[in-house]
Amino acid sequence: MDERVHEHAAVLVDWSARIEAGDDVVIDVDEAAHDLGVAVARKLGERGANVVTTYGSEEIERARLKGHEEGDTGGDEAEPRGFDEDPDHELALFEAADAYLRLGGGRNTTATADVPGEIRQAYARSRRGIREARMETDWVSTVHPTRSLAQQAGMAYEEYREFVYDAVLRDWEALADEMAILKELLDDGETVRIRSEGDGRHRTDLTLSIAGRTAVNSAASVAYDSHNLPSGEVFTAPASADGGIFFDVPMTIEGTRVRNVRLHLEDGEVSDFEAETGEDALASILEIDAGARRVGELGIGMNRGIDRVTDSILFDEKMGGTVHLALGRAYDACLPAGESGNDSAIHTDLIADVSAASTIAIDGEIIQRDGTFRWESGFEDDRRE
Amino acid sequence: MDERVHEHAAVLVDWSARIEAGDDVVIDVDEAAHDLGVAVARKLGERGANVVTTYGSEEIERARLKGHEEGDTGGDEAEPRGFDEDPDHELALFEAADAYLRLGGGRNTTATADVPGEIRQAYARSRRGIREARMETDWVSTVHPTRSLAQQAGMAYEEYREFVYDAVLRDWEALADEMAILKELLDDGETVRIRSEGDGRHRTDLTLSIAGRTAVNSAASVAYDSHNLPSGEVFTAPASADGGIFFDVPMTIEGTRVRNVRLHLEDGEVSDFEAETGEDALASILEIDAGARRVGELGIGMNRGIDRVTDSILFDEKMGGTVHLALGRAYDACLPAGESGNDSAIHTDLIADVSAASTIAIDGEIIQRDGTFRWESGFEDDRRE
Repeated sequence: MDERVHEHAAVLVDWSARIEAGDDVVIDVDEAAHDLGVAVARKLGERGANVVTTYGSEEIERARLKGHEEGDTGGDEAEPRGFDEDPDHELALFEAADAYLRLGGGRNTTATADVPGEIRQAYARSRRGIREARMETDWVSTVHPTRSLAQQAGMAYEEYREFVYDAVLRDWEALADEMAILKELLDDGETVRIRSEGDGRHRTDLTLSIAGRTAVNSAASVAYDSHNLPSGEVFTAPASADGGIFFDVPMTIEGTRVRNVRLHLEDGEVSDFEAETGEDALASILEIDAGARRVGELGIGMNRGIDRVTDSILFDEKMGGTVHLALGRAYDACLPAGESGNDSAIHTDLIADVSAASTIAIDGEIIQRDGTFRWESGFEDDRRE
Repeated sequence: MDERVHEHAAVLVDWSARIEAGDDVVIDVDEAAHDLGVAVARKLGERGANVVTTYGSEEIERARLKGHEEGDTGGDEAEPRGFDEDPDHELALFEAADAYLRLGGGRNTTATADVPGEIRQAYARSRRGIREARMETDWVSTVHPTRSLAQQAGMAYEEYREFVYDAVLRDWEALADEMAILKELLDDGETVRIRSEGDGRHRTDLTLSIAGRTAVNSAASVAYDSHNLPSGEVFTAPASADGGIFFDVPMTIEGTRVRNVRLHLEDGEVSDFEAETGEDALASILEIDAGARRVGELGIGMNRGIDRVTDSILFDEKMGGTVHLALGRAYDACLPAGESGNDSAIHTDLIADVSAASTIAIDGEIIQRDGTFRWESGFEDDRRE
């Protein structure tokens, strides 16, 4: 086995999930993530953890949902039968678990493409308690590089593996220290202004108010309230936002390719939008609920191991030289105690490249120009906007 | 997918496990049993069951146990650290489950060969509560035909698939009815005598006392207290046994090939034994505990779909024209209420071919001659021994 698989497992178990002897751990192994599963199990054995291994097969999930849809029991046909709410055995498993390690990496990113959206949504709604129980554990989500994910990224398999390990096998402690600088600036700041040059609709000039909000130093570890490996971003929950922003990083939202989105925001709410590709998909996202029209997150990517877009939000939003806004739900960790942030069923990230002809400023002082932070070499030390 | 995979799933879910809407089911999918997992999930969806899918990977188990063995925490090296007893999350899962479907079928039957026996045994001992909780569910164990199992059987893959589906896709209702005849004879009988012609040590003449014991009609369904698919045997727990028996069906016990075993029994206990191959393995089995020297089970194979030995106890002991004895633990279901049968940590089956030059008699009346029961065509109707 590639030695990097073992290194990945070590980062996941020790840095990310902080597993200790006696921890009750669930690992969820995707169809093609077997090798990572083996390496993680080895590490968990070394640490003296107790392990339940679940099989995250999307083909099995599809079969079950299709069977449910066409099932021969329960109710008349006009009203499809529902799903049982939070089945006891699954809920009990996660309520008793200390940690949940999701090892993504399937064989087909469209494995559930023919399951009707309403079935998927009904199933997701029936599992709120399970999801909450899982999120109360020290959970971490990562991916094993598979051919299917390489294909999604438009890359050769070998090339994609290099990419994933460049992103995952960082000096996380050093990155956490660097991100702490940005977190402090955001915590102390009142407004963030993002500007990118461009003609007309391609121009970005957006001001977000962040007074009183707390940024998260997302250093790929539960010790930092960060649950993705790789991570490498600092994010906060803006109270409001005004201006226009152009998102030039393409992505896939609910199976639809979305590209070159422009949003105009007033008082934190989308007042106008357009997209060169996938405008309909964007429109339906915005209509899901009231909170879907508001900004829930501002994130600044700081993982320099991620050097290209791969159509996977786990990687794309962490890329150094990008910023992202999320429409929808805000994270509680960013909010003053007792205050609840934007609420929505969705949290959809949109990403803008700020690596050229762009600035990010806090309270009128530039902190990043053309993708280079002011504490990095190469920053032209003029902080005036 | 081969239509027989779906038929296998239907037998498992409907005939064997009797799954109904709302049942909380755990399916455990081996490394190469994915296709059966998909078919079973489909059926479970149709029935409206709730599903947790675990991954029965022996490579992951091996990695964890090897990691545990070489782990860097806990205790001094002279005394290897133990395993936590019945971890909460796994115990909670099975305590809340209604059914457990084990879909065997790995990629390597020797996947855990280099895990020291004492580690495996310590691990097994730490999981007694989990095992008990699992056996309180409607559990069923089956296998998906894999290349590894074909290899174990010495068969071509395609040939092995035919073999497995011949054994699994029976008319189980008809077989259950036929087995009920034998069960009634055994329930009413006081002694069973098994005889096979042969020279000296190859001769079998064994008399077992079964007065007051209840036979199990093992019809591959929880409704019959039968938890294997395929099944197709009637078994009981003899109170005693006297005489000699020659087991000519080869098998693998704890990784060692054992062949042509002769046992001599007095008062139900092994007083003498020999084996042409694997005698040492047999000797260590007999020394495990006091109960290991006593007969725990007499089983009579009745599955005519199984026409050859494949070195898998799931199939071999059910083969029509064979009988088997188990050394060790007796099943409670066979015993009078309140009585406890032979107790042992082991239950090791040994199989004898009785398809030629052999008789099985109950209370002096022959019920099977040369592998043909007296209710089958071809039985020469002379019941005298």
